[in-house]
Amino acid sequence: MSPQNLDSLTQAVQERFADTPEPRLKEIMVALVKHLHAFARDVRLTEAEWFQGIEYLTAAGQKCTATRQEFILLSDVLGLSMLTVAMNNDKPPGCTEATVFGPFYVPDAPHYENGDDVANGASGQPCLVRGTVRGLGGEAIARATIEVWQADDEGHYDVQKEDLPHAQARGVLYSRADGSFDFKTIVSEAYPIPTDGPVGALLQATRRSPWRPAHLHFMLKAEGYETLITHVFRKECVYMQADPVFGVRESLIADWKLLPDGATLLEFDFVLNPTR
Amino acid sequence: MSPQNLDSLTQAVQERFADTPEPRLKEIMVALVKHLHAFARDVRLTEAEWFQGIEYLTAAGQKCTATRQEFILLSDVLGLSMLTVAMNNDKPPGCTEATVFGPFYVPDAPHYENGDDVANGASGQPCLVRGTVRGLGGEAIARATIEVWQADDEGHYDVQKEDLPHAQARGVLYSRADGSFDFKTIVSEAYPIPTDGPVGALLQATRRSPWRPAHLHFMLKAEGYETLITHVFRKECVYMQADPVFGVRESLIADWKLLPDGATLLEFDFVLNPTR
Ligand SMILES: [Cu+2]
Ligand SMILES: [Fe+3]
Ligand SMILES: [Fe+3]
Repeated sequence: MSPQNLDSLTQAVQERFADTPEPRLKEIMVALVKHLHAFARDVRLTEAEWFQGIEYLTAAGQKCTATRQEFILLSDVLGLSMLTVAMNNDKPPGCTEATVFGPFYVPDAPHYENGDDVANGASGQPCLVRGTVRGLGGEAIARATIEVWQADDEGHYDVQKEDLPHAQARGVLYSRADGSFDFKTIVSEAYPIPTDGPVGALLQATRRSPWRPAHLHFMLKAEGYETLITHVFRKECVYMQADPVFGVRESLIADWKLLPDGATLLEFDFVLNPTR
Repeated sequence: MSPQNLDSLTQAVQERFADTPEPRLKEIMVALVKHLHAFARDVRLTEAEWFQGIEYLTAAGQKCTATRQEFILLSDVLGLSMLTVAMNNDKPPGCTEATVFGPFYVPDAPHYENGDDVANGASGQPCLVRGTVRGLGGEAIARATIEVWQADDEGHYDVQKEDLPHAQARGVLYSRADGSFDFKTIVSEAYPIPTDGPVGALLQATRRSPWRPAHLHFMLKAEGYETLITHVFRKECVYMQADPVFGVRESLIADWKLLPDGATLLEFDFVLNPTR
């Protein structure tokens, strides 16, 4: 290969996308080729390393099932998921910040009333959660949809368990007329992201911890407001500084307070961003 | 997400690889994060586009089998395969240039003598191939291993056909004492790369042709010389200007000459690079 050929190869590949009808697809492909080639040139990728990369992506794809998404996990540990969330959820100061969705959300969670126990048999210490949903102007938001999901005290979400007859530690409820809500669940505990696949092998080889700091997932929807997908993190958790998926935001860290009766209380108020 | 968090996220992800024991893995991961994040920032990737990317990689991984490698194909059409080959096979002028390996090589091809027909029943017009194997100094190389593989006139390699009892259009032979070799096979014809998977969908959406210009694959090995993996391309082929995998090098284009008896002749001389 002559040096001119090597120098001009990236441009030649980009030019091959010239006839792409959809301008956005063209823009994305040209940028993808630019950064993919720049990566390979920067590290002077060897043929053996290239093939290891091929094998790695193949193994990740083959690990995926209806309930396991290894590429989302890979995107998470490379910070791409959080970067994408951050770029697309640039809310004004005062709004509750967004964070990563995570791979354990599933639709059609059971509906509950305020005061109900969403744990539904999941193992863990009892926990009371209460707060309000407000708009950026301070107005109470009535009938906001509050969807919540979390792992049990062994670190597993219900979808990771086989043969569970119903959802556990996952539910949908609605804020009251004054914006308030409360429900019972279990205390959030730290858990490791799944390590039995290619992402686990990467964390192992790079000496990175798979442990996510204890958190409770929320998705809030209300007419006239941007949907908010976020977590609330448990302040005392020892893994707070090294979340493997880079989801921690200072403003999302809250106290889980021990009550006199032995239960735990989490209080958290959400502020939603009005849509224009 | 505060602006500082978004700005510093890439660096935070890179720093998480600080404890990687293998320095080369660390270098690769830090560079990968740099270019992956730069890509996402450059195009301001939306959450929907990010998810399309996740689904695309998943589909590619699930398309892979023992005889189908969709990620190699993806690397090929993005020019990454050729870039990697070019960076790692920078031979002195006068040596035969390398090109992409392609996904259709398989080990343990049958052995043949000079003069044999490697087609072994593959359909196509008869073709005689002859040439020499020499070192950069002009010296004949005796007993060089010459491995050859190609598609039939319907555009299929033997490994793409189910239930074929033996290899077709694929074989290994050795150069004579004077460096010469010759064998019979079929005339190389253009063929489309497989379009029934995610890579085909990408070519379709970007209006790129899947047709590779007609070629014959070679891998040459000889003691004291660098292994050469290359193609010889058939000059008159109409697809020469738009090889979907960017494998064409000017010096690898040769004439397939029609002989008076109706057969075709390809003459090509190989020059190998001595290992220091
Ligand atoms: Cu880049
Ligand atoms: Fe989680
Ligand atoms: Fe080929």
